[in-house]
Amino acid sequence: MINWNNLDTLTSFKELSEVERVNLAEVMSGENGAERVKDYSVSMTEDLTYNYAAKAVDDKVLAALAKLAKEAQLTEKYAALYNGEVINTGEKRLVLHQLTRGQLGDKVEADGVDKREFYVKQQQRIADFANKVHAGEITNAAGEKFTTVVQIGIGGSDLGPRAMYLALENWAKKNGTFKMEAKFISNVDPDDAAAVLNSIDVAHSIFVLVSKSGTTLETLTNESFVKDALKNAGLDASKHMIAVTSETSPLAKSDDYLAAFFMDDYIGGRYSSTSAVGGAVLSLAFGPEVFAQFLAGAAKVDEVSKNEDLLKNPAMLDAMIGVYERNVLGYPATAVLPYSQALSRFPAHLQQLDMESNGKSVNRFGEPVDYPTGPVIFGEPGTNGQHSFYQLLHQGTNIIPLQFIGFKNSQIGTDVVIQDSTSQQKLCANVAAQIVAFACGKSDENRNKNFEGGRPSSIIIGKELTPETLGALLAHFENKVMFQGFVWNVNSFDQEGVQLGKVLAKRVLAHETDGALKVYSDLLDI
Amino acid sequence: MINWNNLDTLTSFKELSEVERVNLAEVMSGENGAERVKDYSVSMTEDLTYNYAAKAVDDKVLAALAKLAKEAQLTEKYAALYNGEVINTGEKRLVLHQLTRGQLGDKVEADGVDKREFYVKQQQRIADFANKVHAGEITNAAGEKFTTVVQIGIGGSDLGPRAMYLALENWAKKNGTFKMEAKFISNVDPDDAAAVLNSIDVAHSIFVLVSKSGTTLETLTNESFVKDALKNAGLDASKHMIAVTSETSPLAKSDDYLAAFFMDDYIGGRYSSTSAVGGAVLSLAFGPEVFAQFLAGAAKVDEVSKNEDLLKNPAMLDAMIGVYERNVLGYPATAVLPYSQALSRFPAHLQQLDMESNGKSVNRFGEPVDYPTGPVIFGEPGTNGQHSFYQLLHQGTNIIPLQFIGFKNSQIGTDVVIQDSTSQQKLCANVAAQIVAFACGKSDENRNKNFEGGRPSSIIIGKELTPETLGALLAHFENKVMFQGFVWNVNSFDQEGVQLGKVLAKRVLAHETDGALKVYSDLLDI
Repeated sequence: MINWNNLDTLTSFKELSEVERVNLAEVMSGENGAERVKDYSVSMTEDLTYNYAAKAVDDKVLAALAKLAKEAQLTEKYAALYNGEVINTGEKRLVLHQLTRGQLGDKVEADGVDKREFYVKQQQRIADFANKVHAGEITNAAGEKFTTVVQIGIGGSDLGPRAMYLALENWAKKNGTFKMEAKFISNVDPDDAAAVLNSIDVAHSIFVLVSKSGTTLETLTNESFVKDALKNAGLDASKHMIAVTSETSPLAKSDDYLAAFFMDDYIGGRYSSTSAVGGAVLSLAFGPEVFAQFLAGAAKVDEVSKNEDLLKNPAMLDAMIGVYERNVLGYPATAVLPYSQALSRFPAHLQQLDMESNGKSVNRFGEPVDYPTGPVIFGEPGTNGQHSFYQLLHQGTNIIPLQFIGFKNSQIGTDVVIQDSTSQQKLCANVAAQIVAFACGKSDENRNKNFEGGRPSSIIIGKELTPETLGALLAHFENKVMFQGFVWNVNSFDQEGVQLGKVLAKRVLAHETDGALKVYSDLLDI
Repeated sequence: MINWNNLDTLTSFKELSEVERVNLAEVMSGENGAERVKDYSVSMTEDLTYNYAAKAVDDKVLAALAKLAKEAQLTEKYAALYNGEVINTGEKRLVLHQLTRGQLGDKVEADGVDKREFYVKQQQRIADFANKVHAGEITNAAGEKFTTVVQIGIGGSDLGPRAMYLALENWAKKNGTFKMEAKFISNVDPDDAAAVLNSIDVAHSIFVLVSKSGTTLETLTNESFVKDALKNAGLDASKHMIAVTSETSPLAKSDDYLAAFFMDDYIGGRYSSTSAVGGAVLSLAFGPEVFAQFLAGAAKVDEVSKNEDLLKNPAMLDAMIGVYERNVLGYPATAVLPYSQALSRFPAHLQQLDMESNGKSVNRFGEPVDYPTGPVIFGEPGTNGQHSFYQLLHQGTNIIPLQFIGFKNSQIGTDVVIQDSTSQQKLCANVAAQIVAFACGKSDENRNKNFEGGRPSSIIIGKELTPETLGALLAHFENKVMFQGFVWNVNSFDQEGVQLGKVLAKRVLAHETDGALKVYSDLLDI
């Protein structure tokens, strides 16, 4: 039987807060530090390792975290989720994004169908469609091949798929699986759509309209924008557009689209990269086989996330250390720092994933909680960030926990040797150096050059960023966020906080405003 | 006489913390709210307004802030800075970035020259060079025009210029001043340079190598990367490269470059967008006239920032409200939210500007401070962010102050009417709605749909994002950060926090490691 309790009612949370604090600079020094780096490491997949040696934990803290994870019933709650219980209680929905990449438990039936079969069928339909586009069997009206795919979507229909596309673009070009360039239109700012449309050859472009409900303001507006452009170019818009939506949406059976592929209410936008939302654009860009590898990587991590042993479950461990940092040590934010230019927009995706899931002040039952929940998430790729905001991370007045990601090999493989090392070696040397600099610091009589250390980080190390490792990375963070939501007893799968702004914006556009809102509207010439 | 005192020693700071808190949701309601929006507004330039009605301040708080600004001698310290005193005490340097765009006070002489003349001369040299490139008087070896400019630089040599380029790219295309496409190579990750080089026609590209010292690891490595590519294409690298550096650097008089343009030690990287660092790439991309307009906008704000009256000095007011939020109300972060796709990377620039300047724990004299200094800065353009991390901003357990930016008109001007409004109107309606939603909230019996409000924001409103308004925006934030540094009594112009990582990375590359650092190096195959 599952109990949904607030974190501060759990006895093991009280015990955790009483465990002696770890002096990170001390435990990371000398040979003891070397042993920690070897020991505090756990496999995510055969190609990825989560290393938490530079986190302010020791065996006592880890034991307390394991006890808390058990009391919070994280494994049972995950099982309830993938076995199809109504975990998104606010919206009374199942939460099935893991089912898009594997069958983790019982068969899940909803709306009268086997949901695993439903998602697999959509993937197959997308694969068939993409293969036909690549083979020139589906073409524009002039019988010419499409060369560009443009995703029209916002939020989860944009950030995840865009980050994944950028992560694999160079890999695909290098490995001969690059099929079509992808572009993305998201913002209602008309300059977004106009700039993308100015940069492409619309006659050879296929547009993917992504909206679960079929009613997202930005997306429908940008669809019209695109249809105007197609019409102005003398083209039939319905021959250039596909839809990704729910079966019940107005887009599902419209003649306006070449085809429609389906997702459903059981997959939140920010969890939709492995559904048809990511599937259509990524399969068109890189081929369905690459998308299948991406799903296989995610499935592996979903499997590992079932492990009841905290020390063998990287996503759960990452989650629990984050809870310790947030609720015991009191840190306000987390920085995500991939040492990989290909992951340039991965932090922006995680920002949505984490902050929209766990940026909540009430528990699953709508009661206010008395402890901090989701932190601010931000980040940029290294080494760029080192020359930007790392100053504050090293010497600022707040401690910000860090999440590094690094790969032994580059994707393209072109490199140059300067001062006896390649660029890739320099990149890796920098991330290794940063971990130790943050943890251990360095004392200096000149206080301005003094580093206190004690700034915690973890690192995920991989061989290379491939479709499979990318899928694994994505699932790791999805599952981390899910476990943290369980610990905080919040519903990580709704987003009521975005509603009020929508309501007020409509009122402005209808000129039904008064007070401050009316004056702002006037100032902005609306 | 100027006194450099810690914030917590100032009597007016104690007074400020005792002023009664403002109930933002209350004061922003009804007709009182409408009056506030009209009153709490100050001009930055004829085209830009800073509106702080939705900040948790009232006339009493503002009076206390004015008193604090006076006791902290902000106006005098700014004057000392632009009149050439050694404000960057750690590195014993003048701080002269404002001088790149205007003469604010006394003539400043250093290194035996009039520095204003020096910066103007560099701008003129760049303008001449750019005009010759555009006219086809400076060409590649085959006598063909250059079509692409590629900036090679990192940190301040990348983030600012890149953000400015993206901000003006569509404006320039629309207004007929677009001369050359610009690309940027920054990361030591070899995939960054390789991907950019694969995307351009190197035979028609001119590269701008930017490094003040001429010794930045990433930049020199990427220079070699580019030189290899040019050589492999059978081209003479020295005919394709210019340098932006200091006169004393090894790059200054090298035959490896077509030309060298100069900056100096008195301009920090993060403050260098208006110097030759931004000047070369932006003048080549958009023409020198556009760059001159950009400087003119910045100069206007620098002038307004001299005003001793806090309520007539938007940068100082923004700074002081930020100090109130950080040191009295205790908020840990600030989000920058431009409702303009063109400003997509402006938050990343401000992240460096702010966090690298004020992410310090010691005062100007190297003594630890007992109060929070610079906050975490992050942001994405609206409306995209609304569908991402706004959930936490509206309903999370921390209050995060917000900095909105909005423009009445789009840059390109192509638009579409859906449901009786243009996209630009929808964009503006959304930002107006968000301000009121954050400030006033909305009570609901369902606590999950309840918005407490009381979440403070300000907005900078402009007519359109032009070179001049962009320059003004840039200078506003530079001056805000400067004033906050004065209040916190930190040196905002050094960055000792980035040194330790560099030292350790060199040690890793030389294989001179032990302990944890050695094991991390092994794990990363270095």
